[in-house]
Amino acid sequence: MKPINVVGIGYGGMGSYHLDHILPNETERFHVVGTYDIRLERQEKSREMGHKAYDSLESVLGDKEVEAVIIATPNDSHKDIAIQSLRAGKHVVCEKPVTLNLQELDEILAVVKETDKVFMVHQNRRWDPDFLITRELYQNEHIGELFQIESRVQGANGIPGDWRHEKKYGGGMLLDWGVHLLDQLLFMIDSPIKKVAADFSYILGNDVDDGFISYLTFQNGIKAIVEVGTTNFVKLPRWYIKGTKGTAIIKDWDLSGELVVRSGEENISAPKPIKAGVGLTKTMAPPSEEATALLELPRGKAEYDPFYKNFYSVVREGAEPVVKNEEVRRVMALIEKIFEAVEKHQILDFE
Amino acid sequence: MKPINVVGIGYGGMGSYHLDHILPNETERFHVVGTYDIRLERQEKSREMGHKAYDSLESVLGDKEVEAVIIATPNDSHKDIAIQSLRAGKHVVCEKPVTLNLQELDEILAVVKETDKVFMVHQNRRWDPDFLITRELYQNEHIGELFQIESRVQGANGIPGDWRHEKKYGGGMLLDWGVHLLDQLLFMIDSPIKKVAADFSYILGNDVDDGFISYLTFQNGIKAIVEVGTTNFVKLPRWYIKGTKGTAIIKDWDLSGELVVRSGEENISAPKPIKAGVGLTKTMAPPSEEATALLELPRGKAEYDPFYKNFYSVVREGAEPVVKNEEVRRVMALIEKIFEAVEKHQILDFE
Repeated sequence: MKPINVVGIGYGGMGSYHLDHILPNETERFHVVGTYDIRLERQEKSREMGHKAYDSLESVLGDKEVEAVIIATPNDSHKDIAIQSLRAGKHVVCEKPVTLNLQELDEILAVVKETDKVFMVHQNRRWDPDFLITRELYQNEHIGELFQIESRVQGANGIPGDWRHEKKYGGGMLLDWGVHLLDQLLFMIDSPIKKVAADFSYILGNDVDDGFISYLTFQNGIKAIVEVGTTNFVKLPRWYIKGTKGTAIIKDWDLSGELVVRSGEENISAPKPIKAGVGLTKTMAPPSEEATALLELPRGKAEYDPFYKNFYSVVREGAEPVVKNEEVRRVMALIEKIFEAVEKHQILDFE
Repeated sequence: MKPINVVGIGYGGMGSYHLDHILPNETERFHVVGTYDIRLERQEKSREMGHKAYDSLESVLGDKEVEAVIIATPNDSHKDIAIQSLRAGKHVVCEKPVTLNLQELDEILAVVKETDKVFMVHQNRRWDPDFLITRELYQNEHIGELFQIESRVQGANGIPGDWRHEKKYGGGMLLDWGVHLLDQLLFMIDSPIKKVAADFSYILGNDVDDGFISYLTFQNGIKAIVEVGTTNFVKLPRWYIKGTKGTAIIKDWDLSGELVVRSGEENISAPKPIKAGVGLTKTMAPPSEEATALLELPRGKAEYDPFYKNFYSVVREGAEPVVKNEEVRRVMALIEKIFEAVEKHQILDFE
């Protein structure tokens, strides 16, 4: 097993997460040669962490020892760095969002084809345990067929950092968190999306969206709500999932939640009307006790390799990538459609 | 104080709620003379409850002692009964939804004008304590200016009863619960609605919606999500409310909830990135402890008279009705717009 020599391009928050948190557990497969970052203090930090600090992209790409680069720079620079790297004969891991739009991505993909190098986008949330529970519910129908999936990520810190506030760098929550949540759904649901509706929020006064809500209608009938917020001091659940036989909630990253199914018992007594506000309601009364059952949330499992193990196999053994470029391209097309839907205030056809 | 002699037309669930639960507390203002219901067993029940049981609508309307009727029949019959009653010189309390559409309502309103009798729709959820909390937050800005209001009512019992399943009787959740939730919002927010988007669910296989989601954009910038479901085995909070300075949740009719505001403290340490799934996030990390404060939900108060007290004052003293017919008409116009938006799969302009 010959480790792949990698260099991190961009050594900020995500760059150091790749090099100093993930790859130290992958030493059989990867050898971190060094980093390149335009900021001098990060070059300094790189040396402190025991990595070589390159002083230019050219010097990285001219280094014949380097087989692959990990791009974790502001979003607007991904395209040029990816193309230069591929042309220099390097394999590429690229942070998300892959590019700012479809045209940039297509320029990269043309060079991937031309160079025959590996280009894989770090859609790492396909391995998130909360997502894997949802995927388990979807595939094995613990609550029947799913017909509504609500995926929300809400914080109260605004948009952190510097360049993420600005449109020219590819800031905004649709490109930042949206690309993860949409990637998860499209990876899970094997059906075209027919309709796209969306709206942005601009509470923080940036020129990029500080949150969004999108409403997707799949051809197989599933409706999905995908929502991100950065001014939410109390959160709604991470996942709210409705099936024909029950409902599941995954509250948070800690995987706490609830799963309630129709019990299927016969001779169930009708729900009794309850006082609700100043009125009565039978419709919204809790179901009679024997009508439902509270179950444990199942755990999900990725039957596919972890990201870097897979990247290694793709590079060394020609394996199939878990994150396929055509999938990344489909998500980017959807993001473009969402931008268009917001701008036009219209529900748009998609696939 | 001379009590108003009333007769209940329709003596099912809501009819008996009016006559046997609300009006017994209003004996100074109202005297229940009797009921009329087409079902014999309900005529029997009426006699058991000490009410006269009329055997036809005509006999009610011909009874000179009767000053007002309370209409609580299936929705499709409201219009004809209301018009006949008004023409017979009776004042009318009408259950919601007032009619199936705007045209029917306008026919009633023309007769109201012609007869100069009082016609008031029982939009009683303007007095719901959970709604009054929301209205208090809106008016007194406990969490700053509200910019997003999510109003949800979710149950797991399907659509109860018989006629509520059928389109011809005015069944479906938009007309049933939707009319309440929309009435509350329009009563509270003094701004035109500019955009309407909506979708229905048909999980139960009825020919009416068993749930809906609508997304309203007000001219003053407020966005509202109004949602009703009848196959939700676990519920989202009754209200989820975002303001410029905080977020509030009212979980249920029991008024449990949370209100978290930005503390306004200076020198707040930045939030620390957290492990979330297989990734890191600073954006979605909990705010640092000193950045927010957990407060009690305020209680709200209706500064307007209770429904029946108000109805009495309108009839006897020419007071202003709390539930105005032009407000009821606006909600009905919005409901029609929602039906149209669902049918056309489009976001529609409204006011």
